[in-house]
Amino acid sequence: MSHDLQQRLFQELESLVLIDPHTHINPHAAASRNLGDIMGYHYYTELAHSAGLPREQIEDPAISTKEKVGRIVSKLGDLDNTAQVSWLVEICQEFFGFAEDRITADNWEKLYDTAEQKMAQPDWEQQVLKHSKLEKVFLTNDFDDPLTGFDTSLYIPCLRTDDLVFHFTNPQVQERLQKASNTDVSDVGSLRAAIGVLFTHFKANGVRACAISIPPTFSPARVDDEAAAKAVRKACKGKDLSEEQRGQLSQFIFWTLAEFCAEFELPFDLMIGVNRKVYPSGVFQGQDLFDKRVSLIQYKELFNAFPQVTFPVSVLGQTSNHELVSYAWIFPNVVTNGHWWYSNTPSYIELDTRSRLEAAPRSKQVGYYSDMYKLEFALPKFRMYRRVLAKVLASDFVAGRGWSEERALDLGRQVLRGNVERIFGV
Amino acid sequence: MSHDLQQRLFQELESLVLIDPHTHINPHAAASRNLGDIMGYHYYTELAHSAGLPREQIEDPAISTKEKVGRIVSKLGDLDNTAQVSWLVEICQEFFGFAEDRITADNWEKLYDTAEQKMAQPDWEQQVLKHSKLEKVFLTNDFDDPLTGFDTSLYIPCLRTDDLVFHFTNPQVQERLQKASNTDVSDVGSLRAAIGVLFTHFKANGVRACAISIPPTFSPARVDDEAAAKAVRKACKGKDLSEEQRGQLSQFIFWTLAEFCAEFELPFDLMIGVNRKVYPSGVFQGQDLFDKRVSLIQYKELFNAFPQVTFPVSVLGQTSNHELVSYAWIFPNVVTNGHWWYSNTPSYIELDTRSRLEAAPRSKQVGYYSDMYKLEFALPKFRMYRRVLAKVLASDFVAGRGWSEERALDLGRQVLRGNVERIFGV
Amino acid sequence: MSHDLQQRLFQELESLVLIDPHTHINPHAAASRNLGDIMGYHYYTELAHSAGLPREQIEDPAISTKEKVGRIVSKLGDLDNTAQVSWLVEICQEFFGFAEDRITADNWEKLYDTAEQKMAQPDWEQQVLKHSKLEKVFLTNDFDDPLTGFDTSLYIPCLRTDDLVFHFTNPQVQERLQKASNTDVSDVGSLRAAIGVLFTHFKANGVRACAISIPPTFSPARVDDEAAAKAVRKACKGKDLSEEQRGQLSQFIFWTLAEFCAEFELPFDLMIGVNRKVYPSGVFQGQDLFDKRVSLIQYKELFNAFPQVTFPVSVLGQTSNHELVSYAWIFPNVVTNGHWWYSNTPSYIELDTRSRLEAAPRSKQVGYYSDMYKLEFALPKFRMYRRVLAKVLASDFVAGRGWSEERALDLGRQVLRGNVERIFGV
Repeated sequence: MSHDLQQRLFQELESLVLIDPHTHINPHAAASRNLGDIMGYHYYTELAHSAGLPREQIEDPAISTKEKVGRIVSKLGDLDNTAQVSWLVEICQEFFGFAEDRITADNWEKLYDTAEQKMAQPDWEQQVLKHSKLEKVFLTNDFDDPLTGFDTSLYIPCLRTDDLVFHFTNPQVQERLQKASNTDVSDVGSLRAAIGVLFTHFKANGVRACAISIPPTFSPARVDDEAAAKAVRKACKGKDLSEEQRGQLSQFIFWTLAEFCAEFELPFDLMIGVNRKVYPSGVFQGQDLFDKRVSLIQYKELFNAFPQVTFPVSVLGQTSNHELVSYAWIFPNVVTNGHWWYSNTPSYIELDTRSRLEAAPRSKQVGYYSDMYKLEFALPKFRMYRRVLAKVLASDFVAGRGWSEERALDLGRQVLRGNVERIFGV
Repeated sequence: MSHDLQQRLFQELESLVLIDPHTHINPHAAASRNLGDIMGYHYYTELAHSAGLPREQIEDPAISTKEKVGRIVSKLGDLDNTAQVSWLVEICQEFFGFAEDRITADNWEKLYDTAEQKMAQPDWEQQVLKHSKLEKVFLTNDFDDPLTGFDTSLYIPCLRTDDLVFHFTNPQVQERLQKASNTDVSDVGSLRAAIGVLFTHFKANGVRACAISIPPTFSPARVDDEAAAKAVRKACKGKDLSEEQRGQLSQFIFWTLAEFCAEFELPFDLMIGVNRKVYPSGVFQGQDLFDKRVSLIQYKELFNAFPQVTFPVSVLGQTSNHELVSYAWIFPNVVTNGHWWYSNTPSYIELDTRSRLEAAPRSKQVGYYSDMYKLEFALPKFRMYRRVLAKVLASDFVAGRGWSEERALDLGRQVLRGNVERIFGV
Repeated sequence: MSHDLQQRLFQELESLVLIDPHTHINPHAAASRNLGDIMGYHYYTELAHSAGLPREQIEDPAISTKEKVGRIVSKLGDLDNTAQVSWLVEICQEFFGFAEDRITADNWEKLYDTAEQKMAQPDWEQQVLKHSKLEKVFLTNDFDDPLTGFDTSLYIPCLRTDDLVFHFTNPQVQERLQKASNTDVSDVGSLRAAIGVLFTHFKANGVRACAISIPPTFSPARVDDEAAAKAVRKACKGKDLSEEQRGQLSQFIFWTLAEFCAEFELPFDLMIGVNRKVYPSGVFQGQDLFDKRVSLIQYKELFNAFPQVTFPVSVLGQTSNHELVSYAWIFPNVVTNGHWWYSNTPSYIELDTRSRLEAAPRSKQVGYYSDMYKLEFALPKFRMYRRVLAKVLASDFVAGRGWSEERALDLGRQVLRGNVERIFGV
């Protein structure tokens, strides 16, 4: 396979305008204001911390943003091998005219100042969207997000439900739910009604997906009515639930969400496999890890019970990818969805992409989402994916199977954009 | 590594005449009669179904074979990226003079008719065998197969035992056993005697392997005599067994089969890891998946207890391959066997082939079997494997270790054919 | 990526002088005396056994070393595909002037004699160290090793603790501990004191790591004082412990070791995932395998409790690598450590190296250790790793990211040597 071929495919894929189907963008502050917003991304704080920078130095509320950036920069020499830092350098090169290949103690302050000036331009957000070829951006909205004050045709609402499913015993979550739904929640009926209000509200505001991240131990299941009723009542009264009851409560709420996804014709994004707070002394958002002993067989009942709901599935551990390919191959309602978090580095993306493109229907693959918190990250992250995709299309399809370049590019365009439009109904 | 080198090795491997050590061929109707036989292969029905074709439309008994093919063709556009569909196109090109690279709404009817004419030739089966360079083909025979009416030196019997081990509580299975063995089965002694009759019958007809597919939850073990006696008696009386007893029954029958494999000097093919009916609404044969949480450590007792029995082992999940390589490296009686089902696509075959060829004895590797239901599939499936094998031999052995091409080809020929002859005594 | 680039990087990496951070070298007999010492390495006996050579023929105490080598040679034809045998051939070529590419029935006797003559040279050990570019070699010392009679600045002591943690109920282990520590061990206090004596003794002799290999079922945890006291007392009295108590005993001793690692500022090498005696009829050291159902989540409590202790972690199954990369990415005290045993073959090393170099801090990666029993193995094993490392640096960093060759080599040198110096304080 020639390097030229791969480059040609990459350039074509680079020209494609995108819809990013999963991010954590705040639509009221979508772009960054300074390098601190960019380097505050947990990928850098957690890696700097892992390389030896004490958490206190990173999270010290007394220091300025610029000081914080300087502290993280002091550790970049230990991290410059990582794909994560390559995103950062690429952002600085693409957006801030940074002409070097490493951010160091000697050059970061100038970079900081230049970047801050650039980002102070009133149309910065529009510049980033345009330069990144981003047409639409999916959000991750709290269930009680009013969804006001932003353009929901650009920033597409997505109902995130971790709090409801896994933290409903927390009184603040119940309060937020009551307030958002204007419903007194005391039992299964009122809980269901309240959730229905949320769906109605989100639907009215152009929601395109319901989403949740799930620990490896969880198995969705239909809960017996009586058990569900009891667990919900106890939770609403603030009583202590047994471990079994907490599990049933989570399962009941999860199942209810799936029912509403069916009713409201929403895809239900499942992000499977995260253990929260494995490292409680870690930096903000840098505390979660996984247990690879999870199987999609845990989702058997769910996938069977809701044939009318599409489940775009992300898996956190790379060793889960083969199951994902196989489940998407068999279940009409299972779709492969991007490369999540710890699996979002080139060598794993390559393994996953090769196996997905060769075995599951092309119509059932969402190639990539950025998972970003700030708009500037779409460019380097999608570029990383486009490079891998070009490589796989070149080696496995053009060289390997004798496909024309155009035919291979059609496949690339479909997983990069076409499927996002169709599956999420954008 | 040059592309030319890889091509030269591939061409040499292509010239090799094969013995296919595992298929589901019906020796009374080994070749296809029409495109329906070919596209009725579950790989196409399940993928078309996964891409959105309702099961009813595929399995509607009222429609003609041709109509059914037309319906599946309507979904091929969503599937043409898959290795599975590349087999189909390659069959049409090799056997039916199909000159295009996609089967579409516009060209399939002509293809159907041409193919049907070709397949109507009285020597079609011989043509396929010859063109595919197939010398012998292993079967998958029900335990009560009379093994008559076909040439057992071409179509080699293989005793499949899933029904006995996992469905013995089913009265029909018991009836079939009683009839096939001409033995009244009511207890451990008569059950063992009946199984012995089966082995004697198969041995007299040239059987070369006993085989079974196994769920991830099963662990073979020697069962205590009393427990075995009780479980068998209850099962024979049609009484309900506890879950523990059902497990013991399966373990007892499995162990008995291994004992007969030792006595009759038969390899025992283990196909490890399939969960049946995970998706009960799926199409025929398109309902099974897996749980990657299985380990070969579950076979520790078996591998130790039967050093004189060779176990060619297939694993369903690619993440089981490293264990398989390691167990074949240590246990003299464990042999790596092909690339099974969900692991039978190029990128996984490549990972598995590289790791097996570099770490386990070359004499203990069966490179590939087609697992086919119709003869026409041997050609594209073995070709897929030969391509990967040529690539690995070229990169890892000729380029990587400085081997001569002939030395690398000797290794290729051994895993493709030589080991099949020696291990199965063909 | 050009082959020339890869070669250039390889040659540069080859010139690097090494510290081998984990071996089983006997410092009193570090080099081999004959081919029997080399081919007695369990990699060859177990592979020959796996390929059909009966254990009795290999381990027969009545035969001469030369006869034993001849017997193993008789099986090499079945093993010459393996990376393991490629090490052997490379040793013979590099050290004994062997000019052929296979060791056969026809050439082995001459090779044996030539090798024996070479190895009889009084400075053989020094020759091997120099030719292999080995500057220092870490050992694996029993806890009661007197550590006398060798140069501890060349052969660096490392305290191996499997016996203490997993075999403390064995009276011989207790006897050895009492003798080595000169302490009457009868309860938690005296056990802790005795272990403290060991650490003091090792520290005085330049110990650079504490190390242990761990079965997949073990989870380190702080044990309740009372439970620990009871388990230790019973063990010291030679009474039978329940399975729970045995587990608590192991956990208590393990935790105590970690505490001493903190106190003595020693890295604690964890080699995770080995099941011992899976194949009890296997040859010496060829009986162990693994169960891939293990997760680093089992080490959550440990990694959190000892932030001041560095844990260089090795995993036995390749499917554990993604967790290792991710845990090293998040936990400051987790370091990736080499490619262990069944994962120590080129295709797995390549997968692991690519994913580690692209995602975890470069300062937290120990690239390789030889795990050797005899000095001659460092050369081919490290060369295998350097080849893979050169390939990954060439493809992923120079070609993939546009790094200069020098920058890529700096990264290579750091994981090969720099990190060993810094992490182990050599």
